[in-house]
Amino acid sequence: MQLAKSSDHTYLIAPNPEGVGLSRAVTGVDHTGQPLDTGVIEERPLTIYLNSQEIVTAMTIGDYPEYLALGFLRNQRMLSDADRVTAVQFDEELETVVVRTEQETSHEDKLKKKTRTSGCAVGTVFGDMMEGLEDLTLPALSIRTQDLYRLSSIINRTPSLYLSTGAIHGTVLCEGDRPLVYMEDVGRHNAVDKIAGWMYETGASPDNKVLYTTGRLTSEMVIKCALMGIPALASRSGFTAWGVEIARQVGLTLIGRLRGARFMCLSGEDRLIYDADPSTIADDPNSSRRKGAVS
Amino acid sequence: MQLAKSSDHTYLIAPNPEGVGLSRAVTGVDHTGQPLDTGVIEERPLTIYLNSQEIVTAMTIGDYPEYLALGFLRNQRMLSDADRVTAVQFDEELETVVVRTEQETSHEDKLKKKTRTSGCAVGTVFGDMMEGLEDLTLPALSIRTQDLYRLSSIINRTPSLYLSTGAIHGTVLCEGDRPLVYMEDVGRHNAVDKIAGWMYETGASPDNKVLYTTGRLTSEMVIKCALMGIPALASRSGFTAWGVEIARQVGLTLIGRLRGARFMCLSGEDRLIYDADPSTIADDPNSSRRKGAVS
Repeated sequence: MQLAKSSDHTYLIAPNPEGVGLSRAVTGVDHTGQPLDTGVIEERPLTIYLNSQEIVTAMTIGDYPEYLALGFLRNQRMLSDADRVTAVQFDEELETVVVRTEQETSHEDKLKKKTRTSGCAVGTVFGDMMEGLEDLTLPALSIRTQDLYRLSSIINRTPSLYLSTGAIHGTVLCEGDRPLVYMEDVGRHNAVDKIAGWMYETGASPDNKVLYTTGRLTSEMVIKCALMGIPALASRSGFTAWGVEIARQVGLTLIGRLRGARFMCLSGEDRLIYDADPSTIADDPNSSRRKGAVS
Repeated sequence: MQLAKSSDHTYLIAPNPEGVGLSRAVTGVDHTGQPLDTGVIEERPLTIYLNSQEIVTAMTIGDYPEYLALGFLRNQRMLSDADRVTAVQFDEELETVVVRTEQETSHEDKLKKKTRTSGCAVGTVFGDMMEGLEDLTLPALSIRTQDLYRLSSIINRTPSLYLSTGAIHGTVLCEGDRPLVYMEDVGRHNAVDKIAGWMYETGASPDNKVLYTTGRLTSEMVIKCALMGIPALASRSGFTAWGVEIARQVGLTLIGRLRGARFMCLSGEDRLIYDADPSTIADDPNSSRRKGAVS
């Protein structure tokens, strides 16, 4: 099986490892005491407003602030299908994004309860985390293992902040064997919120999509994926028990520890079609593994 | 140089990979479609109260809830040195911990501003994140690279949930070449808060200590370490720019990408004494690396 290089593939949105302001060169010393220059990622505050209400301050690398704000509000169910967004205004100097809607939203209720989610990649969840999951029906989908391996191979070879500086998470919206939109951020919850914002803004359908993340498959990631209507979530990292439980409840396919030819599927395995010969699948490149221990 | 095995070493508190309720066996399928059993970590809510005030709900694996609550409140500066704690009450059924103080605290002010920190391992920060850092003077310390390598070697070989199930973070309080207290949790902020709670409860001094984390060296981790009065923070993972900046401001030694013989020091390198020969240092065991891509 021929492994795809990222150069074979064109993303709708690809990472921008050379992006101005996303990383910074710093000088330190190495293990022998010799001076060394290295790149480290930025992490800056961005305060999200919904109309006149301050909602949250997120720590982010700073790209796609509008998608981050929209996706955050969507995934927190503060922006419903009924709300019409009239403007999304980013002010770089003030480090704010204001999302304006035609009418006031019902978000005030959600602000009452704050949950500090964990699974290291966390964030604040307002309202009832499980709200909106009860009546959810995720679309049907067939996931060919050939496509899964090809996705993983392309993503691992895509130039990214992950490969160049490490200490960052990526989330990739995929369809079939094609990664479409690849977002990165210091927190994987931000990366997935940016995908949600892009989907909301462009009207992209979650049908036939798979979401790939470099991060762990925690309850928060599973809930976000399900609320976005995407039927499958895959990761090179592992699972939490609650993540598995929620995925099974909502019928989401959960694939973890996807490295080289190996993976585990702990929920929704009926969507899998084993059309690849694992013995022909190469190991992940070292480059993707070396920086892999981010968190 | 002889590498230490964890069996050579006795912790004050060691991880408990067999701990009841910390992980769960689940059944799924592997990449060939064959059924497989695997262990996944738990992730459960714990609501922390300060007297009658609900403060936050944290997602945690569930061990040491009292240390987690105390350490969280200390690191958020909601419990000052002047406050006298009269009781810490954990209710397993209600999933709550109530920390009681002799007099009401000034924490209400802090609840006004919520920041959703990132760097995937995050949490909620109340009040001004930088508060208390301005006047901070961290203690002097010499860090011998021999000790650093030995710490890393012992920690990497210590039986842990990290090695058995992955998808979890560890934080270890160390002195010289001895790891003392090793806490794990789904979020690295919880693991470090549990260390802070243990230090507060036992009155342990931060002098001569090094804090080791499996997670990234973000602003939040640097701030927590500095507020705990510990002069050095080391990790196998990478840095964020803001983490480096704060470490330099407060004079904290920041060591990252510590793997095998290699590391980088991007702040406070004057504390390092290069007494080891890097060519004699073995690579990290595969076991510590395989699950290393947690987040």
